[in-house]
Amino acid sequence: MKEEKNYHMDVEAFRKHGKQVIDWLADYYESIEDYPVLSQVAPGEIRNSLPAHPPVKGESFDDMLKDVSDIITKGITHWQSPNFYAYFPANVSGPSILGELLSAGFGVQGMLWSTSPACTELETHVMDWLAEALQLPEKFYSRSTGGGVIEDSASSAALCALLAARERVTNNRSADFHEKMSKCTIYISSQTHSSLKKACIIAGISDNNIRYIPVDENYSMNPDELLSRICQDRHDGFIPMFVCASVGTTSSLAIDPVLQVGEICSAEQIWLHIDAAMAGTAAVCPEYRYLIDGVELADSFSFNPHKWMFTNFDCNCFYVADKNELVKALTINPEYLKNKYSDANEVIDYRDWQVSLGRRFRSLKLWFVIRYYGLEGIRYHIKKHIGITKQLTAMIQKNADFEILSPVSLNLICFRHNKGNDFNKKLLDELNKSGKIFMSHTVLDGKYYIRLCVGQTNTELSHVEKAWKLIEETADQLKG
Amino acid sequence: MKEEKNYHMDVEAFRKHGKQVIDWLADYYESIEDYPVLSQVAPGEIRNSLPAHPPVKGESFDDMLKDVSDIITKGITHWQSPNFYAYFPANVSGPSILGELLSAGFGVQGMLWSTSPACTELETHVMDWLAEALQLPEKFYSRSTGGGVIEDSASSAALCALLAARERVTNNRSADFHEKMSKCTIYISSQTHSSLKKACIIAGISDNNIRYIPVDENYSMNPDELLSRICQDRHDGFIPMFVCASVGTTSSLAIDPVLQVGEICSAEQIWLHIDAAMAGTAAVCPEYRYLIDGVELADSFSFNPHKWMFTNFDCNCFYVADKNELVKALTINPEYLKNKYSDANEVIDYRDWQVSLGRRFRSLKLWFVIRYYGLEGIRYHIKKHIGITKQLTAMIQKNADFEILSPVSLNLICFRHNKGNDFNKKLLDELNKSGKIFMSHTVLDGKYYIRLCVGQTNTELSHVEKAWKLIEETADQLKG
Repeated sequence: MKEEKNYHMDVEAFRKHGKQVIDWLADYYESIEDYPVLSQVAPGEIRNSLPAHPPVKGESFDDMLKDVSDIITKGITHWQSPNFYAYFPANVSGPSILGELLSAGFGVQGMLWSTSPACTELETHVMDWLAEALQLPEKFYSRSTGGGVIEDSASSAALCALLAARERVTNNRSADFHEKMSKCTIYISSQTHSSLKKACIIAGISDNNIRYIPVDENYSMNPDELLSRICQDRHDGFIPMFVCASVGTTSSLAIDPVLQVGEICSAEQIWLHIDAAMAGTAAVCPEYRYLIDGVELADSFSFNPHKWMFTNFDCNCFYVADKNELVKALTINPEYLKNKYSDANEVIDYRDWQVSLGRRFRSLKLWFVIRYYGLEGIRYHIKKHIGITKQLTAMIQKNADFEILSPVSLNLICFRHNKGNDFNKKLLDELNKSGKIFMSHTVLDGKYYIRLCVGQTNTELSHVEKAWKLIEETADQLKG
Repeated sequence: MKEEKNYHMDVEAFRKHGKQVIDWLADYYESIEDYPVLSQVAPGEIRNSLPAHPPVKGESFDDMLKDVSDIITKGITHWQSPNFYAYFPANVSGPSILGELLSAGFGVQGMLWSTSPACTELETHVMDWLAEALQLPEKFYSRSTGGGVIEDSASSAALCALLAARERVTNNRSADFHEKMSKCTIYISSQTHSSLKKACIIAGISDNNIRYIPVDENYSMNPDELLSRICQDRHDGFIPMFVCASVGTTSSLAIDPVLQVGEICSAEQIWLHIDAAMAGTAAVCPEYRYLIDGVELADSFSFNPHKWMFTNFDCNCFYVADKNELVKALTINPEYLKNKYSDANEVIDYRDWQVSLGRRFRSLKLWFVIRYYGLEGIRYHIKKHIGITKQLTAMIQKNADFEILSPVSLNLICFRHNKGNDFNKKLLDELNKSGKIFMSHTVLDGKYYIRLCVGQTNTELSHVEKAWKLIEETADQLKG
């Protein structure tokens, strides 16, 4: 009876269909450059291809996979295409995808140590491995006062850091000290990621209490301006509470002066969070470790293996110097979750390190990536991406029609044609419509820049050469 | 050269290793009952089996998979064992696991419609399908004022609902109205999930402003007590802001009287959030739709396909009656994310419906489950679980040594031996140590209950019969 059969997928059917999906994905990766990088569908097009009502009877797996090919793929913007240069990458790799698959198969829920000890312990272990790879200070290791946890995103890490900072200044009673809270101030730069502002909204901190510190000519936070604003705020009766320094801003990958900012925060006893979401991965290479110099002065630090370390989104690595501050800010302990290991304080329960209670087994994919690549392999690819970016920079510099925002930081180039903002907008739109490459944009000091970030796992020099040729040709055509 | 080869996993290696992992998982599911359900490792045991330092050279995939078998599996609490009865289930299924695999392979980031239109549109579509399956009111459909989104968890859904409610009462200026915020009150019951309290902590709402409404003899919120507390608060100058009604509490799966609570909230103009995390799935069956009667009076509603609908964690379905209120509370719009579709307001950008910016392609797994099972298949299994629970209830009732918390709600039984709390603690501990089954506990009115929830995808009557036999035998042995 067909329906009865479809009520569950038995193990043999899983074996068969699982291998079909693996083949489907392998074929997809072989032909990924044949798809337009940026999906070309119009709003509503995907929905209009789908039945209006949910099926009452079960359907066959083959039909489902066929719809993935025929309908879904059209609506995919192919982040894993080597011709994807937009935003920041969310690069993945074979070992990471298979780590995700195993995690999905285990289907464990790691809210407590006891609900799957391996889920917690592998996470702690891999976070310590990465602390070593990044040469983080002792305080961020789990054997010390602090430790690391995998959050879904740098947004969540920033929110958790901000909440811990908020509770620190009010001895865990922020909600009862509205008057005091209304005096607490936050320091970011005009270039800081929007998630910091969102964290403030969520945590109930007024936009009026966010200080946007001016940046220097490289779009890095000006530490003198930071210090003078802090002093002024103290004089005016405010309570400076939290600073976020960015290691790699979203617009231009600018690096804030972490060491100088850190010294100010230490002296002023302000929580310093370092958001190294994109560029933090580069610090795995000894020659780029300087990017996070000063991290020893931070209270918290986060970076995203899901951006540039070949690990599937979601995987943000978040470190705190004092785990008690984080846990105190976020703990809840209902009866139905009590167990002897938690009660005895013998284990880590990561539910107290994040917003949600439930959590996936995310460390498997990260473990797989670190082991399959080795630190050597990760470094090799990071350096390759940066090298390709340098070569592309030289190509762009040879064309007098274009200017580049300098200095180019690591693997991100912001460039523009000299025919002005509207022309550059049109140029970017033309290029993205071609389906051959996908880039995004930013605006800095009123100038519209095309942003090109070299970070997809399979991007080679040849891809970038083709991209640049296309950009030049399209610009020439548009000039008319 | 070995190292060079390991710098990436090429497509052929992915094909080969992917099929190995599929076979590994199929074998795992075939032998899952051979493992102790609750992992028996001691704290630190898993970490001690792992190398202290990250590898510099890449390793072979075979070595990695071997360590999964030899080390990781020991530290897994097998949530997908049919003998898992603890907490609430996080049940998965073949189609869901393969949906996750495809999602990992695509590796898209669905923060904006344009960053992968299929990711957004399939999500909207599946949410509308489930609105139909649950017979939700028109306002929760995307074609109306509201709509649905997939959050990682019911915790996040509750937080987003609370934030939207907070901004509603202050016209989106909660952070500037500290005095007013200190007067806003929240209504939950003593049985409401701890995530609501955590949401209040995060949103900056004082514990002093949380009202724990008394429950009736079934542990359901008493609506008369709710109304009288609201009236008293208004009289005392407070601003009643938010009520959470639970459809299936964590301790005993108690159902709050949604309709009566809803009428009070409508009359008093208070945001009503319905947390149907566990029991909401049952409403897919027409005969259990009554559980959410009154949902038409709610401002927001959420339930977890990752609990009882065969869909991998994380997958919480969160509906709001007015999407503008949610978006206004959570939106941020930096230059680098601007695009013509968002600017023209032609599309949904789900980044504005959640805490984080980034998001995975979660709807694929849910789409796969609904299609492979059909509504008929989902209903079949829900009813089977409830049926098995009834049969187990009858078995327990035949043994005079045990008492059951009545009425038994859906698929959760809270029961206890008549020899008192310490005996029941010891009994549960013995049973869980046996590795043959895994259950959890709760405490209600000072009485310690063993909680047994029938919800794992592959649990059959025969499993429950064996479990009960083991419980009886172990209790007899302990009695001595």
